[in-house]
Amino acid sequence: MAKRQLRLGAFFSLPGNHLGGWRHPDASPDANTNFNRYLELARIAERGLYDTIFFRDTAAVAGADAMFAGDRSRSRLARIVMLEPVMALAGMASVTKNIGLIATATTTYNEPYHVARRFATLDHMSDGRAGWNLVTSQFEDEAANFGLDKHPDHADRYARAGEFFDVVAGLWDSWEEDAFLYDKAAGEYFDFDKMHFLNHKGPHFSVRGPLNLPRTPQGRPIVAQAGSSGPGMDLAARTADLVFTAQIEIPEAQAFYRDLKARLHRFGRGPGDLLVLPGLTPVVAPTMAEAREKHEQLQELMPDEVALSSLARLSGGLDLTQFPLDGPLPPLPPTNSGKSRQQLAIDLARKHSMTLRQIARHVASAAGHRVIVGTPTSIADEMQAWLEADAADGFNVICNHYPVPFVEFTEMVIPELQRRGIFRTAYEGTTLRENLGLATPRNRYAA
Amino acid sequence: MAKRQLRLGAFFSLPGNHLGGWRHPDASPDANTNFNRYLELARIAERGLYDTIFFRDTAAVAGADAMFAGDRSRSRLARIVMLEPVMALAGMASVTKNIGLIATATTTYNEPYHVARRFATLDHMSDGRAGWNLVTSQFEDEAANFGLDKHPDHADRYARAGEFFDVVAGLWDSWEEDAFLYDKAAGEYFDFDKMHFLNHKGPHFSVRGPLNLPRTPQGRPIVAQAGSSGPGMDLAARTADLVFTAQIEIPEAQAFYRDLKARLHRFGRGPGDLLVLPGLTPVVAPTMAEAREKHEQLQELMPDEVALSSLARLSGGLDLTQFPLDGPLPPLPPTNSGKSRQQLAIDLARKHSMTLRQIARHVASAAGHRVIVGTPTSIADEMQAWLEADAADGFNVICNHYPVPFVEFTEMVIPELQRRGIFRTAYEGTTLRENLGLATPRNRYAA
Repeated sequence: MAKRQLRLGAFFSLPGNHLGGWRHPDASPDANTNFNRYLELARIAERGLYDTIFFRDTAAVAGADAMFAGDRSRSRLARIVMLEPVMALAGMASVTKNIGLIATATTTYNEPYHVARRFATLDHMSDGRAGWNLVTSQFEDEAANFGLDKHPDHADRYARAGEFFDVVAGLWDSWEEDAFLYDKAAGEYFDFDKMHFLNHKGPHFSVRGPLNLPRTPQGRPIVAQAGSSGPGMDLAARTADLVFTAQIEIPEAQAFYRDLKARLHRFGRGPGDLLVLPGLTPVVAPTMAEAREKHEQLQELMPDEVALSSLARLSGGLDLTQFPLDGPLPPLPPTNSGKSRQQLAIDLARKHSMTLRQIARHVASAAGHRVIVGTPTSIADEMQAWLEADAADGFNVICNHYPVPFVEFTEMVIPELQRRGIFRTAYEGTTLRENLGLATPRNRYAA
Repeated sequence: MAKRQLRLGAFFSLPGNHLGGWRHPDASPDANTNFNRYLELARIAERGLYDTIFFRDTAAVAGADAMFAGDRSRSRLARIVMLEPVMALAGMASVTKNIGLIATATTTYNEPYHVARRFATLDHMSDGRAGWNLVTSQFEDEAANFGLDKHPDHADRYARAGEFFDVVAGLWDSWEEDAFLYDKAAGEYFDFDKMHFLNHKGPHFSVRGPLNLPRTPQGRPIVAQAGSSGPGMDLAARTADLVFTAQIEIPEAQAFYRDLKARLHRFGRGPGDLLVLPGLTPVVAPTMAEAREKHEQLQELMPDEVALSSLARLSGGLDLTQFPLDGPLPPLPPTNSGKSRQQLAIDLARKHSMTLRQIARHVASAAGHRVIVGTPTSIADEMQAWLEADAADGFNVICNHYPVPFVEFTEMVIPELQRRGIFRTAYEGTTLRENLGLATPRNRYAA
């Protein structure tokens, strides 16, 4: 029997996930707004046989609150502007054939009719390669662009998100597969009985439908999610095909994986119906010494003030400049977020006796995701270990800057995964759903 | 001195503007949802040197209200589904180099931050070829998809539209042209003083900004409009670069043109700052007899019930099936819409002694726009006459079905316009603004 296969996402955190990455001599610092760079990355990703491209999104300048309050140090940060990602994917669809196209769109500041329509359009444009990463907005920055003084609270956001999904999925079923007749002789364009009004009326939305697009090539686009709180995991278990998550160590990743997959049966689904992809930031070189050197060079590019303010954001804004940079991590005040990235940082600093500067740079550089510094073999070893330990179904590969580290991972690590028989050597199908090995959902109205 | 030049838009009313057009043997009836057809049309349009592609939009199945009420005859209509047009343009941007990309997005059921962002993204993706057709929604069909029982009234919609424009234009000025430094050595990504918060607070919107995209290649995208009421014309005079309009006869077109251009000075603008493009539906053939025959064949494809219900919509829903189809047009009840399409139909029927069936087919086939049946010479004559009479700055070419009539107009009429020296033989510039001969707006914050 064929070995279990890794799934790989190309998560483009442009112009680079490392907060100093844009300063690297190899980096394209305008990779977030120059569409030619996007097209170049799409072609590399498709040559590398990744399952999908994946874009985050923020409907605001990230960090705008701090800048509004006068924090000029943010001018050192590059991840503040970007092309609207669903649009970018529409442009990438024209120059690719097989790779999936997933982008984030928030349920907090959108209307479900627009979201259903845009991702259905992308699925039609790409012949079945679209995916929607359903999120609730995490940033106060966005509220001020949509008429709100304050961001809605967690429970509200999740209640809205669940209903938002129901409306979108309902709209995607508006037309049965064979609803369009195109019968020129009889003059019948469609079968009236195969068009359906949704008539949704709920606490957050009232949407009649139908969607003004035929059923899409994949039946409906793939749905991805990233929630790791209880309500987030329940929503994913009910609605998602793919979960993107931040996991650092195998035991915690296994626990998350097990917990999430165990929730599926409550919604009539099986463990194969939802794929779990932790983020992974590779620093790869032919030898371990070169890889470490490369990582060190990158860390040097991160200004101390950026590193400290990243760590401070995990700690309710505590002013860390009062502590010596080469001393130990000071005690941090408790926070009330779901799964605490702060606690992960505290544990890590203790385990490796890191200084304040070191742990601050670490937190800032990884943005919560796992950084693997190594050779093609050692990185493939770790990826395989996670797969075999049921800690992951694959990984979302997030690079420190673009395009060079992405090319390196693609050309050095992927061939090693292929040699081991745990990654494809050709696309299996033509739709994202086929390549991910996921079933096509039935239309709720189909006889 | 060079002759005054015609502007030409390729207005893609897919799968065809004629309500029976999709039934024609040459027609691609899925041209509204099959993206390969869109790409084919984009390539033809760019080879033809059109200034711009232009898409209408409805965020609903058009006619959904009637279908909700049980009108099954709508299954004969094709213009009910379509790709979301801003997304379609993003895909077309990748396979074109010079042609403009204008799509409609309603101000009635959108948020200005999203609209500003999507069109700015399109301008970046296309290196300066994007345009936004700002409209207020005209169809009750949309209200039910966005939580409203009733469509807002005309005055409300225009008040919101004006403020919506102000927010979008303000967001497009968020960053000065040289705000991004990309200074790797100093670690300065942007110049903090060249980023601007909008801080808009108005009756409809509260939007802080900044937009999360740099200033666009055109300064800002082109703004098109189509309003013909007094408030619509005032809004266009204040904010639009281009106006799309329905005009049938030269005297009325001249009056509209004069009226609109006369409003410009109140907003500190000159007559060259806004271009007026009436719609034009060509039926072209080598001889006049062939062209008439072609038009007759097309009219035969329109089912009587579709023709009658189009005319009935102009007449407050009067049941026209009670009158003999081959008799004269019966008296129609008065309507209260701004510029009456009904009155145009009544005048036309009287002038040409048309039967009820003939005038109903005429109304249904043109959808309010001018149909010119003729040879390349006669059509070019009429276009030139309108240009020279200051009845138009050019035309939006709207075809009865796709792609054949569009290819015919492009290959038969455009060369005739070029021979007369009133249409370009190569693109003048690389941005839409340059090709239209419009100035680049200054950033409001620029020193």
